[in-house]
Amino acid sequence: MTSNVVSPAAMLAVALDEAGKGYAEGGIPIGAALFGPDGRLLGRGRNRRVQDGDPSLHAETAAFRDAGRRPGYRGTTMVTTLSPCWYCSGLVRQFGISRLIVGECRTFMGRHEWLAEAGVDVLVLDSPECAALMTAFIAAEPALWNEDIGDEA
Amino acid sequence: MTSNVVSPAAMLAVALDEAGKGYAEGGIPIGAALFGPDGRLLGRGRNRRVQDGDPSLHAETAAFRDAGRRPGYRGTTMVTTLSPCWYCSGLVRQFGISRLIVGECRTFMGRHEWLAEAGVDVLVLDSPECAALMTAFIAAEPALWNEDIGDEA
Repeated sequence: MTSNVVSPAAMLAVALDEAGKGYAEGGIPIGAALFGPDGRLLGRGRNRRVQDGDPSLHAETAAFRDAGRRPGYRGTTMVTTLSPCWYCSGLVRQFGISRLIVGECRTFMGRHEWLAEAGVDVLVLDSPECAALMTAFIAAEPALWNEDIGDEA
Repeated sequence: MTSNVVSPAAMLAVALDEAGKGYAEGGIPIGAALFGPDGRLLGRGRNRRVQDGDPSLHAETAAFRDAGRRPGYRGTTMVTTLSPCWYCSGLVRQFGISRLIVGECRTFMGRHEWLAEAGVDVLVLDSPECAALMTAFIAAEPALWNEDIGDEA
């Protein structure tokens, strides 16, 4: 794959595939993937709170982990089905990931605007498929969702 | 342990012990720990980039992971030997960790001031031991250090 042939929609499809697998596993249905400057898939992953009992693996950190050690992230693209929380936005900012593609921010308004202000190239696709998945999940598992975003209210 | 008997210095000692173990393993010598509102140790960890080939485990995220799933973090304290980067600061902010104890910020000025502005109770101890460990490490392994903080310059 090269950057010319990997559209934002095609990148999101990888993240959405991860989210769907997470949902089928009884997990939190958020997926993400990291693509290189040349459009090559570097890593992909999904939220693993339920599956691994691991609160540190949000979809974005799982994809970042899957990509392994790298000298830098200039020119890379992180794609995620849901607007990233502070934790995952901090990851994108610290490591200088150049571009962020967000599936949707209707069900959770994360910090993608903060990243855009910091110079990250941000694209929000407003995907109905991503929103439908999260809407169904949040309605079915509100306590689990609140746990995942640290909302004790 | 209860909050009455766990001083900031005693909390830092746990993080520093983790950092020292990381250094002995040939890893990046940063350690962290998470303590509960009652002063109980919930989790501890160290940077695992070298040891596990895992770029997602900074000291703070390793300690957070070690603490396992929790309904919330109100009243908890994260202690770290080094001022936290954007990634780890985002973790603290997203999950509402109430207090942050920083060993030192001489060798790396992270985002603890951003957290303080956001309402986190921040204490910087300016530990000579923490600073000496990082100073020695950065001098010996500058490329590895730059990789860990995403500095491609």
